[in-house]
Amino acid sequence: MWARDEKFHDECGIFGIWNHPEAANLTYLGLYALQHRGQESAGIAATDGHLFHVEKAMGWVADVFHGERLKRLPGTAAIGHVRYSTSGTSTLKNAQPITANTARGPIAIAHNGNLVNAEALKGELEKDGAIFQSNSDTEVILHLLARAPGTTLEEQLPQALARVSGAYSLVILTPDALVAVRDPYGFRPLSLARLGDAWIVASETCAFDLLEASFVRDVEPGEIVFVTAEGVRSIKPFPPKERLHCVFEYVYFSRPDSILWGRNVHGVRLALGHQLAREHPAEADIVIPVPDSGMGAALGFCEESGIPFQVGLIRNHYVGRTFIEPSHGIRHFGVKVKLNPMRETLGGRRVVVVDDSIVRGTTSRKIVKMVRSAGAREVHVRISSPPIHWPCYYGIDTPTRKELIASSHAVEEIRRYLGADSLGYLSLEGMLKATGSDPGQFCHACFTGDYRVGFQREVTPQLSLFDPPT
Amino acid sequence: MWARDEKFHDECGIFGIWNHPEAANLTYLGLYALQHRGQESAGIAATDGHLFHVEKAMGWVADVFHGERLKRLPGTAAIGHVRYSTSGTSTLKNAQPITANTARGPIAIAHNGNLVNAEALKGELEKDGAIFQSNSDTEVILHLLARAPGTTLEEQLPQALARVSGAYSLVILTPDALVAVRDPYGFRPLSLARLGDAWIVASETCAFDLLEASFVRDVEPGEIVFVTAEGVRSIKPFPPKERLHCVFEYVYFSRPDSILWGRNVHGVRLALGHQLAREHPAEADIVIPVPDSGMGAALGFCEESGIPFQVGLIRNHYVGRTFIEPSHGIRHFGVKVKLNPMRETLGGRRVVVVDDSIVRGTTSRKIVKMVRSAGAREVHVRISSPPIHWPCYYGIDTPTRKELIASSHAVEEIRRYLGADSLGYLSLEGMLKATGSDPGQFCHACFTGDYRVGFQREVTPQLSLFDPPT
Amino acid sequence: MWARDEKFHDECGIFGIWNHPEAANLTYLGLYALQHRGQESAGIAATDGHLFHVEKAMGWVADVFHGERLKRLPGTAAIGHVRYSTSGTSTLKNAQPITANTARGPIAIAHNGNLVNAEALKGELEKDGAIFQSNSDTEVILHLLARAPGTTLEEQLPQALARVSGAYSLVILTPDALVAVRDPYGFRPLSLARLGDAWIVASETCAFDLLEASFVRDVEPGEIVFVTAEGVRSIKPFPPKERLHCVFEYVYFSRPDSILWGRNVHGVRLALGHQLAREHPAEADIVIPVPDSGMGAALGFCEESGIPFQVGLIRNHYVGRTFIEPSHGIRHFGVKVKLNPMRETLGGRRVVVVDDSIVRGTTSRKIVKMVRSAGAREVHVRISSPPIHWPCYYGIDTPTRKELIASSHAVEEIRRYLGADSLGYLSLEGMLKATGSDPGQFCHACFTGDYRVGFQREVTPQLSLFDPPT
Amino acid sequence: MWARDEKFHDECGIFGIWNHPEAANLTYLGLYALQHRGQESAGIAATDGHLFHVEKAMGWVADVFHGERLKRLPGTAAIGHVRYSTSGTSTLKNAQPITANTARGPIAIAHNGNLVNAEALKGELEKDGAIFQSNSDTEVILHLLARAPGTTLEEQLPQALARVSGAYSLVILTPDALVAVRDPYGFRPLSLARLGDAWIVASETCAFDLLEASFVRDVEPGEIVFVTAEGVRSIKPFPPKERLHCVFEYVYFSRPDSILWGRNVHGVRLALGHQLAREHPAEADIVIPVPDSGMGAALGFCEESGIPFQVGLIRNHYVGRTFIEPSHGIRHFGVKVKLNPMRETLGGRRVVVVDDSIVRGTTSRKIVKMVRSAGAREVHVRISSPPIHWPCYYGIDTPTRKELIASSHAVEEIRRYLGADSLGYLSLEGMLKATGSDPGQFCHACFTGDYRVGFQREVTPQLSLFDPPT
Repeated sequence: MWARDEKFHDECGIFGIWNHPEAANLTYLGLYALQHRGQESAGIAATDGHLFHVEKAMGWVADVFHGERLKRLPGTAAIGHVRYSTSGTSTLKNAQPITANTARGPIAIAHNGNLVNAEALKGELEKDGAIFQSNSDTEVILHLLARAPGTTLEEQLPQALARVSGAYSLVILTPDALVAVRDPYGFRPLSLARLGDAWIVASETCAFDLLEASFVRDVEPGEIVFVTAEGVRSIKPFPPKERLHCVFEYVYFSRPDSILWGRNVHGVRLALGHQLAREHPAEADIVIPVPDSGMGAALGFCEESGIPFQVGLIRNHYVGRTFIEPSHGIRHFGVKVKLNPMRETLGGRRVVVVDDSIVRGTTSRKIVKMVRSAGAREVHVRISSPPIHWPCYYGIDTPTRKELIASSHAVEEIRRYLGADSLGYLSLEGMLKATGSDPGQFCHACFTGDYRVGFQREVTPQLSLFDPPT
Repeated sequence: MWARDEKFHDECGIFGIWNHPEAANLTYLGLYALQHRGQESAGIAATDGHLFHVEKAMGWVADVFHGERLKRLPGTAAIGHVRYSTSGTSTLKNAQPITANTARGPIAIAHNGNLVNAEALKGELEKDGAIFQSNSDTEVILHLLARAPGTTLEEQLPQALARVSGAYSLVILTPDALVAVRDPYGFRPLSLARLGDAWIVASETCAFDLLEASFVRDVEPGEIVFVTAEGVRSIKPFPPKERLHCVFEYVYFSRPDSILWGRNVHGVRLALGHQLAREHPAEADIVIPVPDSGMGAALGFCEESGIPFQVGLIRNHYVGRTFIEPSHGIRHFGVKVKLNPMRETLGGRRVVVVDDSIVRGTTSRKIVKMVRSAGAREVHVRISSPPIHWPCYYGIDTPTRKELIASSHAVEEIRRYLGADSLGYLSLEGMLKATGSDPGQFCHACFTGDYRVGFQREVTPQLSLFDPPT
Repeated sequence: MWARDEKFHDECGIFGIWNHPEAANLTYLGLYALQHRGQESAGIAATDGHLFHVEKAMGWVADVFHGERLKRLPGTAAIGHVRYSTSGTSTLKNAQPITANTARGPIAIAHNGNLVNAEALKGELEKDGAIFQSNSDTEVILHLLARAPGTTLEEQLPQALARVSGAYSLVILTPDALVAVRDPYGFRPLSLARLGDAWIVASETCAFDLLEASFVRDVEPGEIVFVTAEGVRSIKPFPPKERLHCVFEYVYFSRPDSILWGRNVHGVRLALGHQLAREHPAEADIVIPVPDSGMGAALGFCEESGIPFQVGLIRNHYVGRTFIEPSHGIRHFGVKVKLNPMRETLGGRRVVVVDDSIVRGTTSRKIVKMVRSAGAREVHVRISSPPIHWPCYYGIDTPTRKELIASSHAVEEIRRYLGADSLGYLSLEGMLKATGSDPGQFCHACFTGDYRVGFQREVTPQLSLFDPPT
Repeated sequence: MWARDEKFHDECGIFGIWNHPEAANLTYLGLYALQHRGQESAGIAATDGHLFHVEKAMGWVADVFHGERLKRLPGTAAIGHVRYSTSGTSTLKNAQPITANTARGPIAIAHNGNLVNAEALKGELEKDGAIFQSNSDTEVILHLLARAPGTTLEEQLPQALARVSGAYSLVILTPDALVAVRDPYGFRPLSLARLGDAWIVASETCAFDLLEASFVRDVEPGEIVFVTAEGVRSIKPFPPKERLHCVFEYVYFSRPDSILWGRNVHGVRLALGHQLAREHPAEADIVIPVPDSGMGAALGFCEESGIPFQVGLIRNHYVGRTFIEPSHGIRHFGVKVKLNPMRETLGGRRVVVVDDSIVRGTTSRKIVKMVRSAGAREVHVRISSPPIHWPCYYGIDTPTRKELIASSHAVEEIRRYLGADSLGYLSLEGMLKATGSDPGQFCHACFTGDYRVGFQREVTPQLSLFDPPT
């Protein structure tokens, strides 16, 4: 359970609120709006300024936080966390916020991102007598904080964070402060809003919309925002760094209705579709998205190409958190349990299938086969991002390099594997241009291997499985 | 718990399989494909020809039927049921299949529909000493069956069914037979398929697609199909009746990828959209569906009108089965927890919002307000079915008449209530024409009050609340 | 689950209360005092005169009825039931009270005893169209009641009960009456008490003691007591029968502090010990009971014999409801998990071990071995009842005849099997004399095979396994 | 949940096993035998030499450790813990073994006792950056161990333990060692046994009896025993101290069949009863124990006095772990739910009631009233230990001083409060003499206030409530 077999890094959503009589209830709603960032577990920590309470559970926010549970979280300040579902190591032990008692008192922390030097720091801390309850990189931050010189959080937090490297958007709760932090590169999003007298921070602005809170601004890269009874104070204790916003947040991860780094996500996806249609036009009768992730780019492709949009694959949304393949006697169902093709739409047609990305290729191959077996005359696959060649070490859970089909296969080989009549990936330049922002401010290491924040290969399990970029 | 406060009528999905070594596993998959027909509870009964086992639980199929539970359902024949979630009376007691021991042995039954003379029959049966475990109309069938003259199911079932009136598609399981029945009017769908040596029945063909079973034909109105070790036998013991297919299955209830009464559902919805655009054109910049139910008609509306399709409302699919509004201090969230408007899409635009129907009007009103507050310049609501004036007594759970906005308000009044710039409902004739079938074969009582299968007003709680059609 | 593999007959405890504002709470306490009569499941049904609520669960009363659950049982009248744990068929399905809706309204019933003609009646009822939810003999009574001529319970209940044969103490609850019944032979106990304005019935008087209720009298054999808003009415509709009080209630089943049929149970057990010492004296240094069942007789044996009482076996009371033997690699623990011998007490001593009865003999054999291995010089086994030759069909769950060691072995053979230096069973006459009551009023069929209430051998599964008494 | 409101100190039972293929299964059985030492929670940690697994739960061992759970604990070494139920703070958070990852690898620890300088050490450790997950004093040991100089457990453990003061019997598990420790004073018991090639340690020898393991010897005060693949090594790294065996283990806490510090516990209790009869004889007709704790002393009283032993109070063993008083409308039930008096035994008699101790006096008062209301003519209370004047700080959970009736009332005042005709407490000298051991080797601070291991009054919550011994 607490042994050394657990994985670090996971994509997540975080939320925090200060000075609201229903802090836990609003955190529940905020997490609900951020559910797409993590469906494995959900947790909330709340404080009334004296006592701390925390509730964590496996499952969806709407399932695990019923009224009784929220009543166990009194107080006017709270933070929350949703965590991504990864196979094999889904345990309550990994749920956040994580909490501890330190000399300064109780503290709770929720983290979106991944520290690339966590293992090394953990080894050092353990040699110095630290006791770890998990293998979470987030716990490393707690230990550094507990040991940082000084007596206040404002003194200690910058010193603790100065030692960690990688991607981190954090919300931290103590009896007298809510703190929001983004790492100096700004890998992951984090924004600030007001709701009456309350302050709110959240991974994405869609959480503000649900609460009818007013967006104030993004937390800036390298910024630490302290919200206390005295008001809001901001410090920027770290030397300035280049920006490394995760471009994949635009491509796939964020919710279409969020405003991310100044742009609406759905709007960017439409632009990705426009650019995709320009780079890889197709002679076809209809365009269909792979639901739901390909929707924005597919609509953009239609707008640019003039080819009609159609519904060709029906998605079953009732998979729940625990869909289990039945016993071995039945053939593998795979994507069939989620998608069903529409013979009436697809039959006899030349079809453009638009998706946001291809990871291992196995699902895309099944979709192509499914579309073709429903009668499509031609299947043209269009992907609204470049081939993924490299794993992410900055907070998105990705397979090892050798599992990424594009790391070892050319586009034509992939096309043949998929069984498509044509295959077009959006170019790196096209993708960055479509964001409408300065192309230099994005991290695109998963496409290019250009890992700008370094890490030791030997301490990261995933890295030992592939040839590092040279 | 077992007192007299429970409601009859609910929409449901049913499934049955005969002669397959993994009968329960395939039933699980079949129910999963039928999940949209009922998310409250799921149940499976299986038999190995001697013993019966049944497992029922509240919740989604994919959540409640894990591997351990399916292992408790051995045998080569099984039936399953999913039930709709209705407020207030959601209890395991109402889950199906319902089971009993009779003189002929154990029996399990799953029902989609609603009997209009159940209360009267129940009173008669109780007077004759019958003991009821629930208020389910389905239990009435069991009692009639247990008391019918004769010694075989083939003798007894027609006699039992001859006494009931209303809508019923049934699957029945005994140790030596799987039986599929549709009432003489054919209100609810039920189809037959083969998978190797196995026979399958299901409410909708999308269940066959998932299992890669081959559609054979619909069970016909008034037909009883017996599947036994000797093969398949069909009887039609009842006098012929007019057809009363529920047109609302096309409008809203069935899954778009199903083939219903010979037509693909999505195809019918496109046609409804075409007709809607012809009957109620709009001067507008974009067309958006109310996700997910308005999708097909919205696309049809676009095709006919040439106005571009857009995504204007983002749906949160993570509501789960237990989303609970937080405490009273927070204002009511209502549809906001499910839908969020896209300011970038809607801002400054003249918007056509397409939905399948309006029931109470409160949700539509919130959507109009939401679209307008996101910046829409004009909001034109288009509905792909006529105004609903009457409750359904044939298996769809609808509010009482006075809760139906169209029962007491003219279209213009509704438009003003919604706050829309224009409102257009599809005409009855237009709707029936769009089905592409003989208009005379549909039940449209909810639109017209033309209840062709009569019932006693005093025994049906809903009826006592409104003036009966005269 | 609802198949034909379940057993009828089980020993149980029942309780009922009328006209008390905390009816369910007092039922909970009453069942708690009756817990020794059944540890498998517990259930309470309550009514406020209109609605019925019922809660049932596997486990001990004190574990399953927490405050929340009791709050779901409002009303001023309630009945409760505890059920014995039998291997294999422990399911919630078998828990009582059982409830149903009949033409007269809802009804709940709790039963202690066993009907010997239940199978035959069930067959007849099923032929007549009755649907059974369980194989419980109690459900037969419900069906007979639902079909009895007449319109009031007072008319119908005598007619229903006239058809059943065997042992039954019943409490029945309807919205307007609490009914207490003992069968005409009076096999099982049932007593009546008052608590202020409330009436209480319970299997044993120890339940009255806990509630500080005043014992009024026993319900008489063949009596039906109706408690309603009009007061208490008693009828005796059946022809008089001989009394057949179960003598085993004195020997083992009832709690020592109860007053049963006019005598204190512990007092009777002391008298059984006196008589046992007279019939089977021993040359010994100490007397030890098998805890806890042999306590009373052991003390009586000491009083009569003058041999000192000692504690030689320590009982672990923490077995809980679910003690599971660990995996196969470890040898069988059997009685060791419950009892540990005291070497200091037993070492070098000649020991009299007193128990109430021997069923299969395997446990007694282990105890003798345990006592001897702890150093006892001699082991003299004394049993405060005669050899058990026959199964019980009147409400105590006993093994089949061939599993009863005394049915096929002489006392000397049993002594050798146990490994005891001597073995003495109390004589039938001695046992009956020790009760201090008329010896003719007891059922002692388990000792003598003198089944005075007949039954058909073919319908009772246990009977088919042994030679019937001739 | 993890805030500062939890209590330290609790009585507990611990168990460890090394080199047995069914380590977790045997730990389960061992804990089951030690269940009387703690019924609140149970936990087991097991290792196969590489991975660690731990399972903890609220409740009884036999309830919480079913087969599935034990299967999740593979490996050949394990430790276990049962914890006492204290009101208010019963949470899983407090369950043991507690586990952590340190620089040396994973470690698990289970503790019986209480450290008197835990708060001070915790403050120091927190100032030095330690993060605490609980308020358990046991976690202090883990942190000291993680920070102790050296690289092996043999180097580090003595250094860590040198800093703690108070009562501790410990079992510690690492992937390559099982360690057993008793503090230098030997407050709590801990013994060593063999079972084939396996080594076992347990709080009491009754655990060995159940497993049929052979008692080897007690772990000595101040001894650390390392059991590894290389065999058993013992070190005694601390300066010798006086012995302070807890005399209350003989009086009440240990199981009667255990051999404690060379004497059988039941034998000591008989001797306490002999001495009690000599010091406080009574003119009476019968002697009854307060079950189950007064049993041994009552029998001894009878042996010495010649007054007959009787059963006068029946104990209900089905209280379970969650007995909840019903709602406020019903008067407080208190001891009535556990004990019922026997009118037949007590009526008209002069009764000696023997118990092991009086804490607050409220229960004893109820028992006297209960015995008298059952008809006793005289009630003479005899207690087999001296008046308790002081709280325990060495591992037994006791009330604060002002709640102890004897701390503020003379014996005659207590007698009057109890309503007894006479009251006799055993003298300190008599009690110590009855142990049959050197009287100087016992801690009797709860009787005398002679706290030989000092503590700071301000850090211990209980101490601030009473006047310290001067």
